[in-house]
Amino acid sequence: MDYLENIPFDELQEGQTADYVKTISEDDIKLFAIISGDTNPLHLDPEYAKTTRFGQCIAHGSICAIIVSAAVATRIPGPGTIYAGQEMKFKKPVFPGDTLTATLTVQEKKRKGNIVLIDCVIRNQHGDTVFTGVSTVVAPTEKVRIAAVKLPTVELR
Amino acid sequence: MDYLENIPFDELQEGQTADYVKTISEDDIKLFAIISGDTNPLHLDPEYAKTTRFGQCIAHGSICAIIVSAAVATRIPGPGTIYAGQEMKFKKPVFPGDTLTATLTVQEKKRKGNIVLIDCVIRNQHGDTVFTGVSTVVAPTEKVRIAAVKLPTVELR
Repeated sequence: MDYLENIPFDELQEGQTADYVKTISEDDIKLFAIISGDTNPLHLDPEYAKTTRFGQCIAHGSICAIIVSAAVATRIPGPGTIYAGQEMKFKKPVFPGDTLTATLTVQEKKRKGNIVLIDCVIRNQHGDTVFTGVSTVVAPTEKVRIAAVKLPTVELR
Repeated sequence: MDYLENIPFDELQEGQTADYVKTISEDDIKLFAIISGDTNPLHLDPEYAKTTRFGQCIAHGSICAIIVSAAVATRIPGPGTIYAGQEMKFKKPVFPGDTLTATLTVQEKKRKGNIVLIDCVIRNQHGDTVFTGVSTVVAPTEKVRIAAVKLPTVELR
């Protein structure tokens, strides 16, 4: 069984880093379209996408928002974190099959309110930066270790 | 067949608004966990969620990031938009079954680079604000009308 463990406010150190890696599949992009309702063929129809300046399907830009929030929720600070805000810039397109590595760095700790600012850079498998951002979170004060939920399998028709 | 139609830069007016409505199902939350890898039981396990201060499962906060990006991509300005950046604040939890209404308002047009700042407020069915944010987009300059893709159906096991 997998566990999720946090790093409480007092244990977090400015400059501390963590990586979170995710490969974006074509199915991820379809599921994103289902959740969001964003049915633009640029993301879903290879024939249409060929006619655009990208020449192929691209992921919805905010798939990076999902990755950064998951990184914060599971790595730094991890479970018990309250996600208060996020700034983000989308730098380059993400293509199906890309492997994204989100690197989090603790930028600043504010004792008042246990606020932590976390810098995030997401790079693809070529080392290109596709996303930069800063998360504002309320860090947990207590150690938490919980069993991760086993995800259902999904079938698309 | 459904179509997606945009509002090009020249037609956009400061103060112009559009709504985008989405009900968040339990399956949406499971799919979000699958895409992101955020398997925190707070979002997925009702028994565990009962022991938290929320008393029940809540959606991942950044589900609102998906909603706002879909609103921008399909309504204002719509297809052809380049999503350059997003600031966001998560104000209140979103629960499974909540119906979210994202209200976009064109805040500012900048002729240089066809940049448009779009304010977004997301409210739940009780009228509570759960999210506020500002999107920075490069608006399309040409009218686009494209057929929306028919989404696959999804089965979770």
